[in-house]
Amino acid sequence: MQEKNNFVFINDAFYPSNNACININDMALQRGYAIFDFFKTLNGRPVFLQQHLNRFYASAQAMRLPVTYTQEQLKEIINQLLTKNDIPDSGVRITLTGGYADDGYSIQQPNLIIVQRPLPISTITEINLITHHYQRQLPYVKTTDYLMAIYLKDYISQNNADDVLYCNQNEVRESPRANFFIVTKDKKIITPKTDVLNGITRQVILHLKNITEYMIKEEDFTIQELQNATEAFITSTTKGVLPVKSINNLKIGDTDSKPATLLLQQKLQKIIKEEIGIY
Amino acid sequence: MQEKNNFVFINDAFYPSNNACININDMALQRGYAIFDFFKTLNGRPVFLQQHLNRFYASAQAMRLPVTYTQEQLKEIINQLLTKNDIPDSGVRITLTGGYADDGYSIQQPNLIIVQRPLPISTITEINLITHHYQRQLPYVKTTDYLMAIYLKDYISQNNADDVLYCNQNEVRESPRANFFIVTKDKKIITPKTDVLNGITRQVILHLKNITEYMIKEEDFTIQELQNATEAFITSTTKGVLPVKSINNLKIGDTDSKPATLLLQQKLQKIIKEEIGIY
Repeated sequence: MQEKNNFVFINDAFYPSNNACININDMALQRGYAIFDFFKTLNGRPVFLQQHLNRFYASAQAMRLPVTYTQEQLKEIINQLLTKNDIPDSGVRITLTGGYADDGYSIQQPNLIIVQRPLPISTITEINLITHHYQRQLPYVKTTDYLMAIYLKDYISQNNADDVLYCNQNEVRESPRANFFIVTKDKKIITPKTDVLNGITRQVILHLKNITEYMIKEEDFTIQELQNATEAFITSTTKGVLPVKSINNLKIGDTDSKPATLLLQQKLQKIIKEEIGIY
Repeated sequence: MQEKNNFVFINDAFYPSNNACININDMALQRGYAIFDFFKTLNGRPVFLQQHLNRFYASAQAMRLPVTYTQEQLKEIINQLLTKNDIPDSGVRITLTGGYADDGYSIQQPNLIIVQRPLPISTITEINLITHHYQRQLPYVKTTDYLMAIYLKDYISQNNADDVLYCNQNEVRESPRANFFIVTKDKKIITPKTDVLNGITRQVILHLKNITEYMIKEEDFTIQELQNATEAFITSTTKGVLPVKSINNLKIGDTDSKPATLLLQQKLQKIIKEEIGIY
């Protein structure tokens, strides 16, 4: 299918995506120095935009990349982009790079790039993970560093998995594009606390604190504890709350029943509907 | 100083550098997925070109990035670029990216970018390093991941240093753009063996094996052993063999005398002169 030639915003103007270019001197290309954020729109309405913008500005500050626009100005630019492109269900990516460096090694005036694409239609209802020992560098910052994730694609498919679950020494961390949760036998829903990206969906789930008989919180756990989990799931902007079927080809939980995961899926869906004004 | 608008090679054609652009869909920009190599020319002659090309193709293969050109074809393209630009003393960077990915996450037909710039004129005769605990990911591959190096620039200047020396746990590794050597009291010249980039200048120095009373070899050592070193130096394509004056603000060696470093500087200069045909 030929993709529609949507508009892209670069620095101060809109360009058709097939003509959306940056000079090869950019620090993202030269040195992998860039941050981004990614939110979705449903029915033309951004979901959790404020949370994503808060994180985007925090990532930019952590990497000493000045954003020339205020949050209000950036929201206005995003609105203009959504109006121009008219893609009701979409993913919007805001990237901020280290800018054009003649010496190829210094942060300059950043380049700001905003891209909107149709949301990929996914029919996946659960996923299989394979663990790999790796700690993301600068884990609290949403950088463009996915070198290991892409590098591991062969390893993932060779192990009949859909994605990787990073672990540092023995401790579970996260997937490259999703946070990870388990449900314990004593009814805790926990997600690693240390050295992970604070995903927006992760924040929404944690904000629930407790739901029916479950207590939801940040708590580190080990690879060994995975085998005692009754359920496991990942969270992300595109995938929402998605059940994990197996890790390292070992099934999670004794039964196919996943009451906590289903409960959170419903809860998240309700929160998103409220967010975009569908009651 | 306004930089000359040199030619850049992208995929199959030459472009003026101010018009050398790639689409924002490129995987280097989206996901930091790219490799490169960098060699210098002196008097219009490439230095250690074969070694750099060997490493470039090895990096590409490690990251599953096909190079559409044979080494002979690539050499011919480089020759054309050198002729067009006519910059006798220059640095040439060959970058290979993950290509244009519509899904932003899959390796596609790579983009090949070759840039030539004048060699920066350096008057630095020694440098000061500050250690930082960090292990480069995929250390044997020359990727474009310099996220930590650029991120640490403030830390480096706050510590009155010129660059960082990465250490994993207690073991010394390398600088972001240079290998690291020490000279021991028992006349060994050693450079870390484990999880470092195999720099071309490092290879040239190691190939000497021994020189006068010194034995040169790969051997891991710890941060603690630095204080017993009589000399230390870094090696890189641009810096050659450059003495390290201090690490963590502690002077290396008891005296200012650096006989081994000077010997290797002379030796390297001689080898480079032979390489480019000046006897």
